[in-house]
Amino acid sequence: MHLFYQPTLTPADAAGLLTDEDARHATRTLRLGVGDALSVTDGRGNRYDSVITKADKHCAFRVQTVIETPPRPFAVRICVAPTKNLDRIEWFIEKAVELGIERISFFVGQHSERRILKLERIEKIAVAAMKQSLQAWLPKLDEAIPFAKLVASVSESQRFVAHLPENVPTQPLIRTATPTGQYAVLIGPEGDFSASELQQATQAGFQMVTLGPNRLRTETAALSACQALNFLNQ
Amino acid sequence: MHLFYQPTLTPADAAGLLTDEDARHATRTLRLGVGDALSVTDGRGNRYDSVITKADKHCAFRVQTVIETPPRPFAVRICVAPTKNLDRIEWFIEKAVELGIERISFFVGQHSERRILKLERIEKIAVAAMKQSLQAWLPKLDEAIPFAKLVASVSESQRFVAHLPENVPTQPLIRTATPTGQYAVLIGPEGDFSASELQQATQAGFQMVTLGPNRLRTETAALSACQALNFLNQ
Repeated sequence: MHLFYQPTLTPADAAGLLTDEDARHATRTLRLGVGDALSVTDGRGNRYDSVITKADKHCAFRVQTVIETPPRPFAVRICVAPTKNLDRIEWFIEKAVELGIERISFFVGQHSERRILKLERIEKIAVAAMKQSLQAWLPKLDEAIPFAKLVASVSESQRFVAHLPENVPTQPLIRTATPTGQYAVLIGPEGDFSASELQQATQAGFQMVTLGPNRLRTETAALSACQALNFLNQ
Repeated sequence: MHLFYQPTLTPADAAGLLTDEDARHATRTLRLGVGDALSVTDGRGNRYDSVITKADKHCAFRVQTVIETPPRPFAVRICVAPTKNLDRIEWFIEKAVELGIERISFFVGQHSERRILKLERIEKIAVAAMKQSLQAWLPKLDEAIPFAKLVASVSESQRFVAHLPENVPTQPLIRTATPTGQYAVLIGPEGDFSASELQQATQAGFQMVTLGPNRLRTETAALSACQALNFLNQ
């Protein structure tokens, strides 16, 4: 099965047009034609099971059924510093979206190796992963902002900061978070958090947790935190 | 901290030599010299905290302390079909080793898109990830063998096959496995298992489990299964 993405669709629409990119994929790559079935999502929880009514460089379809997927009974937000090597953060986006995540926020920390991130490319990867994994919700993606600004803006009730335990005994995230919550987890840059950043986070009510005994790369830690919360709610 | 790998070391050794590749990394890249501290693992649970005694194209060291890490009280074995795109399976290896895994076995299924896999490159990635995550154990890697042969050879007491639930209600892996076990999980190829392969697996005592509601790529499913078992034991 293939899923297409048309963000402008609403459940009120009886018909629609695929984006040019998706139209090419449907008619050229998959060779779909008039009368063929087509599943489209708006990325806001609705899947439109449709039939193709026009198949050239534009792909028009008539909506037959709208299937609504409610949001998950919990919400995972991962706040992460972009990695020096873009492939690594892009890989995290693809995998986190496949596995299930509600929101990804980027921040620039004192030890960040990368301070600028083009969200456009990240969005393309997120959309592709949503389609690939047949989901009807596209996660929210936030532009990179300074760490202090992010920490002050997080409103999720269950707030965590992932940190490798040193002398202080730290509990695993999956044993600290409670089910069906609204979660936000801070993942440090390759250079780790600065002492003052850790202090800012704890003062803002972020609880220090560990993701396990091993030293993890930034993108590995980010995905592991996402998975801990998904599994907690499975 | 940097960790080096010398598989020929044994706890009886008072001194050793790094491999040429690690020697280059230590003396050229990191500019370590005589008298500098050096941590080396044999990949079999021992870390040798040493001091450099010779630093040219060979890097010789004297062992000061041997720190032994016991194996984990559980063991995760993931059996997976190599992906058509090698990057994807290589990414799985890197991440699974970082996060913790005891054994990775490859198989060729009826719907496999790739039938040959060079283990040498996979081993390099596993060693790099072991060093990166500062672990003293190198997972066992098995050459790709036919599915039937693999299924017959698996001796772990907790055996699972990951499969997307269709009509049959399937329980999540993390709610089905029990802690401190010896686990083996079968992950299907991009073309999924064939009906007869699923039958062979269940007849061999593999329990069908789900990794969640989303359709996952092979490498994503493999890492998710590994993480479910790691989190179960956290």
